[in-house]
Amino acid sequence: MKVHIHVSLKSGVLDPQGRAIHHALEGLGFAGVNDVRAGRLIELDVDDSVTDAQLDEMCRKLLANMVIENYRIEKVGEKENA
Amino acid sequence: MKVHIHVSLKSGVLDPQGRAIHHALEGLGFAGVNDVRAGRLIELDVDDSVTDAQLDEMCRKLLANMVIENYRIEKVGEKENA
Repeated sequence: MKVHIHVSLKSGVLDPQGRAIHHALEGLGFAGVNDVRAGRLIELDVDDSVTDAQLDEMCRKLLANMVIENYRIEKVGEKENA
Repeated sequence: MKVHIHVSLKSGVLDPQGRAIHHALEGLGFAGVNDVRAGRLIELDVDDSVTDAQLDEMCRKLLANMVIENYRIEKVGEKENA
């Protein structure tokens, strides 16, 4: 089973990496970009026996820093295997 | 308009960060994890006037390293604003 974990900074937390990307996009001449936030995408391939609760625990214990980050668990199944 | 850019390493490219996460998950006692790949998630807030072609160009010029990375553009609209 393929699982994607989307980890993003909570709103209000400063994001220097996102600011740098925003600045670079403007420097390249791209207009119309209002905001950029940088986060992480973690792609897991887990056994079907792994439960939602276990995935949640993985995020809380290791994958996301719950003080400053939010996470979202998305099961993509086997079909979306790009 | 909210746009999420998912950047992930091409298959075949070594991913030491993913390996480290995999190892750490096993160390924490999580079983059933077969593979871990680490990528980036870039959340853009752009004007509605920004076209798909422009988003594509942003990815190719700055956001993804086309030699080793794939990207996927996902428009999430205004509703999904977590």
